[in-house]
Amino acid sequence: MPATLKLSEYLFARLKQLGIDSIHGVPGDYNLNLLDFVEPAGLHWVGNANELNAGYAADGYARIKGIGALITTFGVGELSAINAIAGAYAERAAVVHIVGTPPRESQDSRLLIHHTFNDGEYRRFAQMHQHVTVAQANLRDPRTAPAQIDSVLQQCLLHSRPVYIEVPVDLVAAPVSAEQLKTKISIPNVEPNAYQESVISKVIDKIYEAKQPIILVDGETRALGIVDDVEKFVSHTKWPTWSSGFGKGLIDETLPNFHGIYRGNFDDPKTQRFFNDSDLVLCFGPHFSTTNSFASSSIPKTQTAILFTDTEIRINTQVFRDIPARYAVSRLSLKLDSSRIASYTTYPDLPRDQSDNFTSVSSDGPIKQDRLWRILSTILRPGDIVLGETGTAGYGCREMPLPRHTRLFTPVTWLSIGYMLGAAQGAALAQRELISSSNYHGITNARTILFIGDGSFQMTVQELGTIIHNNLDVVLFLINNDGYTIERCIHGLKAGYNDVAAWRYLQAPSFFGASEDTYTASVRTWGDLEKVLGSGELDRTKGLKMVEIFMDREDVPKGPLSYLLQLQTAGQ
Amino acid sequence: MPATLKLSEYLFARLKQLGIDSIHGVPGDYNLNLLDFVEPAGLHWVGNANELNAGYAADGYARIKGIGALITTFGVGELSAINAIAGAYAERAAVVHIVGTPPRESQDSRLLIHHTFNDGEYRRFAQMHQHVTVAQANLRDPRTAPAQIDSVLQQCLLHSRPVYIEVPVDLVAAPVSAEQLKTKISIPNVEPNAYQESVISKVIDKIYEAKQPIILVDGETRALGIVDDVEKFVSHTKWPTWSSGFGKGLIDETLPNFHGIYRGNFDDPKTQRFFNDSDLVLCFGPHFSTTNSFASSSIPKTQTAILFTDTEIRINTQVFRDIPARYAVSRLSLKLDSSRIASYTTYPDLPRDQSDNFTSVSSDGPIKQDRLWRILSTILRPGDIVLGETGTAGYGCREMPLPRHTRLFTPVTWLSIGYMLGAAQGAALAQRELISSSNYHGITNARTILFIGDGSFQMTVQELGTIIHNNLDVVLFLINNDGYTIERCIHGLKAGYNDVAAWRYLQAPSFFGASEDTYTASVRTWGDLEKVLGSGELDRTKGLKMVEIFMDREDVPKGPLSYLLQLQTAGQ
Repeated sequence: MPATLKLSEYLFARLKQLGIDSIHGVPGDYNLNLLDFVEPAGLHWVGNANELNAGYAADGYARIKGIGALITTFGVGELSAINAIAGAYAERAAVVHIVGTPPRESQDSRLLIHHTFNDGEYRRFAQMHQHVTVAQANLRDPRTAPAQIDSVLQQCLLHSRPVYIEVPVDLVAAPVSAEQLKTKISIPNVEPNAYQESVISKVIDKIYEAKQPIILVDGETRALGIVDDVEKFVSHTKWPTWSSGFGKGLIDETLPNFHGIYRGNFDDPKTQRFFNDSDLVLCFGPHFSTTNSFASSSIPKTQTAILFTDTEIRINTQVFRDIPARYAVSRLSLKLDSSRIASYTTYPDLPRDQSDNFTSVSSDGPIKQDRLWRILSTILRPGDIVLGETGTAGYGCREMPLPRHTRLFTPVTWLSIGYMLGAAQGAALAQRELISSSNYHGITNARTILFIGDGSFQMTVQELGTIIHNNLDVVLFLINNDGYTIERCIHGLKAGYNDVAAWRYLQAPSFFGASEDTYTASVRTWGDLEKVLGSGELDRTKGLKMVEIFMDREDVPKGPLSYLLQLQTAGQ
Repeated sequence: MPATLKLSEYLFARLKQLGIDSIHGVPGDYNLNLLDFVEPAGLHWVGNANELNAGYAADGYARIKGIGALITTFGVGELSAINAIAGAYAERAAVVHIVGTPPRESQDSRLLIHHTFNDGEYRRFAQMHQHVTVAQANLRDPRTAPAQIDSVLQQCLLHSRPVYIEVPVDLVAAPVSAEQLKTKISIPNVEPNAYQESVISKVIDKIYEAKQPIILVDGETRALGIVDDVEKFVSHTKWPTWSSGFGKGLIDETLPNFHGIYRGNFDDPKTQRFFNDSDLVLCFGPHFSTTNSFASSSIPKTQTAILFTDTEIRINTQVFRDIPARYAVSRLSLKLDSSRIASYTTYPDLPRDQSDNFTSVSSDGPIKQDRLWRILSTILRPGDIVLGETGTAGYGCREMPLPRHTRLFTPVTWLSIGYMLGAAQGAALAQRELISSSNYHGITNARTILFIGDGSFQMTVQELGTIIHNNLDVVLFLINNDGYTIERCIHGLKAGYNDVAAWRYLQAPSFFGASEDTYTASVRTWGDLEKVLGSGELDRTKGLKMVEIFMDREDVPKGPLSYLLQLQTAGQ
């Protein structure tokens, strides 16, 4: 390694070390010099159609590979992306937002350049980003830049949340010391002490006492880096286990003791009873937003819960700080005596998500939400990534039993519609990279399958062009139910403002540049759908396929949406 | 008028009073109840495909009608729009950004609802908006809400810049006093005093002394509300007059003493000499960003300049505060003795922008930037609105001589690519409303003509669906030059990151739902273009027409872009 290298080389070498192989973003005149260094660093430049979508894509990429990055330009670019950065913050995706900024001379002389407010004030956009990122670095001095970069990247890993790095044009090629590159960036270790051990012992005592223990895997489990440990724990204890919507897809759903999403008040009465009768709920990576907890009804009772969070263990009402989940779970695995934990001699009779098939539906009948998702689940293969956009798709996907190593994106808390199309682009790219580096559970081909409603699709539609341009393996199911059905359930069932412009959706692949023989299909009946699924077209892995499913605008999956819809209908 | 009305009725009645007839935006679950009141208030709900585009559209609408509005939802919606709000701030468009927020109960109890960061903190988004708006109101109390609304709307008018209003769901229908509605909102008057009169006298003295006075109309002239007065002044004095790019289209370009944009170092030597030799430059609405002033070279010399700004008059190096342009210009008109001002007995020989025609080009030759814009100017009719997106189009449009009452949007300072497509939607709607209320200079039909490059078009393409859905009269010229040509001029002439995905652009109208007989044309040669322009298709006012013009990716209009391109080519 040379003793010095250019600042941008340093930055990109660091990203590469952390497992990033592609960078999302859009060129702009304050980042062009920076982009010169992307491909030479061995990184693929994606080139998104706009910055919001680039942010969504970097987030989707990060959720599959652990970390992602995007590059935007000062002002206009970075502000266009800021909603995506906020979403990554809310749902813990480790996204590095790099902004190419004007030369320091322009900044310091308060020159009235473009992408400013013509008032000489250059710091507004960074200030805005402080609200949506866990760390920020404004690189101003080549001597300190490497340490600044390292520090924010460590924060990014530590919190699995976005960070913000400003690179002035005139520093892109500044020489910096290569010395620090020799030390890998990693999450700082816990210094073991007696206090932590005493808390772990408390947890273990609770576990030994429990007669009817259960496990709830919530979605921050991924961000906390404990997915494998938790899966082992679930597998090992054989205790009945549920996930939240956010947690679904993280651990092996084919384990016999996995029972899908715990739906709180909306769940099967038998499940609710068992969950509520449990005397111990071990909950990993809790994320108790109302939307991720069925209006708080799936949150374990405090008096029986032990929560493992980013920095704390909560045992019932007590909070023990500075015991990160990663450390706690590893200590737990080590210290737990399996012979002393509860085992279910007769495993309880608890429902599991089931696939469905076409025998139970009439072939000329319209497609209905009540069975669609369980039928669609039959097409899933190990390694597929499934995305269900906010709306009926997001709820529907929660009913799907998933093969091993299938990852699921469902609406959690941020719920920015249009997100899933950008995220699908990023996730599909991450998936391809993992496969090509033989780092994908031995799976050699897999698809990214996106279910998205018409209203959401319109938000970010141009990213289909990026999916095509990058030749990604995406199957897109467009649910055409004539507008914002999820909003109709909330308010304005028949209101004109919940309509959207009527597009000819299946023309999308052609318009966005796909080869003319790209597979598309239009589906109105169960018979149509059976034909499409039976055609084998969706199994051919390569490139884009698109299926438009027409559904009634007042049809929704059973659960929170149907509950809301009933209230709306009653109010008519 | 009833003594009380609902808060949302109050808000919308105020917008209506200010001349707003349509509201842009996207539904979301914290604004649905608010949307119930839009149409009953006599306002048209546009229903955009996404919030960034809605913001651009509201900005375009505001620049034509004086003020515009959009409604978004808490968090996700408002942040998606924030780059558009920033642009409206930078270039002074009066945009009212109304955000539907969660019920006060959720906010006050820090409930972990969706569209938050799952941390109980609800104020981040409003804090971010403080950086990009001139006034903010968080409506929390029905007793004070009317005064809060009035106060921010007055600020919006006063500064011609965006404001931000939060309406919690549970206050939408709260009864408020109607009393204040009787008093119209207006910009506060100046209290005349001797100080102002003495400054006006100084200005008048300078005018009387001047031997070679000239006028520069910059773009804040619109925001300052002095367009008519300035036009009268130009017409009356007959002094040689130029505009900036920002100012072009504001005053009658057919006046014999109007000479187009003053291009500083890039202008005809004769023009530069005359401009620089002038002993007095009256400059209205100055906006001296580097991009609006040809890298500062078109800024009048301080020692000969008098600037009329939002709150000041600057006479040479002296700054006289608290004399708003509107007041100053009206006093000037009143007090100036025309018999004592310079008149050009022999009007100087100064170039003007000229149209061009097909006689000078070869019919099978490729379309070139050097003549395209002057040829395209022949299709313009009084009342048309012309938009030239950042890129070659934005520079090209500056060469076009404009008929009376033609308004032009060119890149000024914010330069957020994709803006012009959204702005075209808003401007076309504003234009239609002005025509239908017989408030458009007696013009009964006119078009909105958008010139946009492929890269910019991709950014915001879904708004074509909104243009179609709202049946707006838009002629769209897509400049297909294979990527970001403007970026190629700046850096990375041949770099892959300046490419964009290759779309089949002319399929856009069909994809986005236009009737199948929508006029589209593809143009590669001058002969092709002549045929299209001669067909009369673009003159039929109704609906969308789209023409794709293929051009070389390294061809740019003469001026700053060709200068930059030369540097790039030399650097190869």
